[in-house]
Amino acid sequence: MADSPNSDLKSLSPLQLFERVTEQGEKVRALKAGKAPKDEIDAAVRMLLSLKLSYKTTTGQDYQAGLPPKDLVLINNGTAKEEDEDLVDPWNVQTSNAKGVDYDKLIVRFGSSKIDTDLINRIERATGQKPHHFLRRGIFFSHRDMDQILDAYENKKSFYLYTGRGPSSQAMHVGHLIPFMFTKWLQEVFDVPLVIQLTDDEKYLWKDMTIEKAYEYAKENAKDIIACGFDINKTFIFSDLDYLGASTGFYKNIVKVQKHVTFNQVKGIFGFTDSDCIGKISFPAIQAAPSFSSSFPQIFNGKDNIQCLIPCAIDQDPYFRMTRDVAPRIGQPKPALLHSVFFPALQGAQTKMSASDPNSSIFLTDTPKQIKTKINKHAFSGGRDTIEEHRKYGGNCDVDVSFMYLTFFLEDDDRLEQLKQAYTSGELLTGELKKVLIETMQPLVAAHQERRKQITDEIVKQFMTPRKLAFEF
Amino acid sequence: MADSPNSDLKSLSPLQLFERVTEQGEKVRALKAGKAPKDEIDAAVRMLLSLKLSYKTTTGQDYQAGLPPKDLVLINNGTAKEEDEDLVDPWNVQTSNAKGVDYDKLIVRFGSSKIDTDLINRIERATGQKPHHFLRRGIFFSHRDMDQILDAYENKKSFYLYTGRGPSSQAMHVGHLIPFMFTKWLQEVFDVPLVIQLTDDEKYLWKDMTIEKAYEYAKENAKDIIACGFDINKTFIFSDLDYLGASTGFYKNIVKVQKHVTFNQVKGIFGFTDSDCIGKISFPAIQAAPSFSSSFPQIFNGKDNIQCLIPCAIDQDPYFRMTRDVAPRIGQPKPALLHSVFFPALQGAQTKMSASDPNSSIFLTDTPKQIKTKINKHAFSGGRDTIEEHRKYGGNCDVDVSFMYLTFFLEDDDRLEQLKQAYTSGELLTGELKKVLIETMQPLVAAHQERRKQITDEIVKQFMTPRKLAFEF
Repeated sequence: MADSPNSDLKSLSPLQLFERVTEQGEKVRALKAGKAPKDEIDAAVRMLLSLKLSYKTTTGQDYQAGLPPKDLVLINNGTAKEEDEDLVDPWNVQTSNAKGVDYDKLIVRFGSSKIDTDLINRIERATGQKPHHFLRRGIFFSHRDMDQILDAYENKKSFYLYTGRGPSSQAMHVGHLIPFMFTKWLQEVFDVPLVIQLTDDEKYLWKDMTIEKAYEYAKENAKDIIACGFDINKTFIFSDLDYLGASTGFYKNIVKVQKHVTFNQVKGIFGFTDSDCIGKISFPAIQAAPSFSSSFPQIFNGKDNIQCLIPCAIDQDPYFRMTRDVAPRIGQPKPALLHSVFFPALQGAQTKMSASDPNSSIFLTDTPKQIKTKINKHAFSGGRDTIEEHRKYGGNCDVDVSFMYLTFFLEDDDRLEQLKQAYTSGELLTGELKKVLIETMQPLVAAHQERRKQITDEIVKQFMTPRKLAFEF
Repeated sequence: MADSPNSDLKSLSPLQLFERVTEQGEKVRALKAGKAPKDEIDAAVRMLLSLKLSYKTTTGQDYQAGLPPKDLVLINNGTAKEEDEDLVDPWNVQTSNAKGVDYDKLIVRFGSSKIDTDLINRIERATGQKPHHFLRRGIFFSHRDMDQILDAYENKKSFYLYTGRGPSSQAMHVGHLIPFMFTKWLQEVFDVPLVIQLTDDEKYLWKDMTIEKAYEYAKENAKDIIACGFDINKTFIFSDLDYLGASTGFYKNIVKVQKHVTFNQVKGIFGFTDSDCIGKISFPAIQAAPSFSSSFPQIFNGKDNIQCLIPCAIDQDPYFRMTRDVAPRIGQPKPALLHSVFFPALQGAQTKMSASDPNSSIFLTDTPKQIKTKINKHAFSGGRDTIEEHRKYGGNCDVDVSFMYLTFFLEDDDRLEQLKQAYTSGELLTGELKKVLIETMQPLVAAHQERRKQITDEIVKQFMTPRKLAFEF
């Protein structure tokens, strides 16, 4: 970084400018504390003011110490969260609203774009396929640069898909399938390569878990992912612990990202503290690196300019805001993103689900009987207290978890609309709605279990072997 | 880490205790700031006092905020350096004394042990070889646990050697050869495997340098290292950028170390700040990991309990103090160390040499004429101002750089002693002493160049290919 604030400040990103102001502020304090000559202090203060002005011009915000530019701020960084705002970051999702997180507000705060009807229509035109019900129903609701992906696609320029999972336990629930179901659809309609990262190193760093256990969970989770129906010729699944030691490109991109992100930045974005281990502090670079095609020389023939599209739940966005900030500085294209809402816990949409609470969701290992019991016993109802009241005033689909689950898993639009009408009018009782959900989930989970049984260790090994896919680059 | 301060605090290392006190202090401050109930604050304060007492009992020092336990403190952490102390860390060596750094003081400050006559005699007995002149002359002057290495060796338990270099430029000088010359001798007399790390990733992170350039320097430097005469069947040389992507064991050890070291710790040890990039912050784990045999499954047959001995200049000790602190917590043996003094610049022993100043030392690419000119022109003399005074009072070998260089490179003890006597008595003039040095260095550098010419890219590739060595484990 140059010493003069005039040396092309315009080329700096908001985060870099923030850094410059912070450093200059520290310098001024040090000069004052060290009783430096007055003219030296004055010069440093002038530079500080000039930097603050550049910051304001660039970001439209006043500089505030400890508070990085707004569109890069995560909400678990206490200073940036307003009183009534939802808490959303890779480790926490909290809202006080029974309808769940306010996603329109989140779009504004994160600085992403809404997936509107125009974009959905454009996807339909580009692929010639009816848009997935996750798009039609606003389950994937926000994006970054999806229009650029479509521009390029319409000009016969390909891209690749990247998604992932943190293998925190052997047990996956139906909510974990959402990004994979959608990614599978994207892969089919666009016919592009897909890479799936299993962050076993992250789980080792964050949890009280051995490396061996984390890697074992990664391989077990891979079975559930493969059971979604991915094409082995078009999909590469990797564990970080494995692939980092088996790729000529991955670590190079990690270290490039690590050179261009400071502790101040990850502190601002992820809320890390001085007491966090250095593994956590540097981990964001490991989730960032698969956004660059040069991390997969075996797939992309060493090409480093293939654009990446990342479908993920919106709590993962902080990683990719950071990635997008770094990308141009290391000569790589910014990844595009498609963000989903969170999958609600059975107990209600206020919280994200927990793999450690077996009653918080329907797990992929549940029996038909367990599914029935869980839904009947735990699914939060938007119905009325008595049958009489329910018949009279109707149920509330906005907070009813059974109805929410049906928007995820019942593909038939007409049927879903009928159920909504009937429940809202009071014609359909809570027990009846739950019955529909039970009858939807039981065969869905059973079919998944059936497919998963076919996934041998050998098949997992093939998916996880670095190799060329069925595409030419 | 457990919540109660009484839960076996004795098993914690000084650094872990330091962390606990720091965290508890932060907790007390947070409680006070948050106006918590008085009894809650009181309980937290009591726990803080109890932790501070444990800290004092363990370390013999009072807890001071921001100042980690003394034997883990590096001196570039301003708070820990006393006024008249030398500055010694992996990036800086500074002293105001023309004789160079006060190594006896450094041993006390770093908490290592002096290599005394007993230890040297023991090495001679164990190996049946005359000790290397670097040992006899105190050039390798300090150690950690070398006695344990010898205990084990005498009981037929093998170990391995680990040393390294940061490839900051193509140009290596004669000082860079010191650890390699000594390591080669150790390898020969003990007959053990050797791994040599080239930290090209570190140089990329610290310098204004591309990844490609750093890797190129690594391969060029490998030629100079191989030219020292290492046995290809017993030596593995690796670039981090290469080997991290080619090993099933290396990254796993890196992430294990990264889980057990906090930002507070690397801040204390290496003086990192919040403005440093996350690559620098996590790098110490990458220099630590080769201390564990499981980083080289191809050499040690997957065994994770082979002891490691690290010969290095003492400025690298901070990395290995950290490594030794972590080792027992990840179930690995602590590496042992042998520390060398610094090689003085031609201009005097006050500074470490710089590869960027061609006149600061004799480079391995220098011609005989360049060597002669440099020594005559730049080698700081301990001689007197006039020939008359010199004859009368004699020269000062303690500050004379030509004499210092001869202690490194003139193997003949008798000849060196004669020169010392003659120079000190005034019989030998500065020009004559310089002539001896020139005549010593010219053939030494020429022979190195001759050997280096034989080192083809193919040979480098062989040395850098992960493979089994000529040892059974």
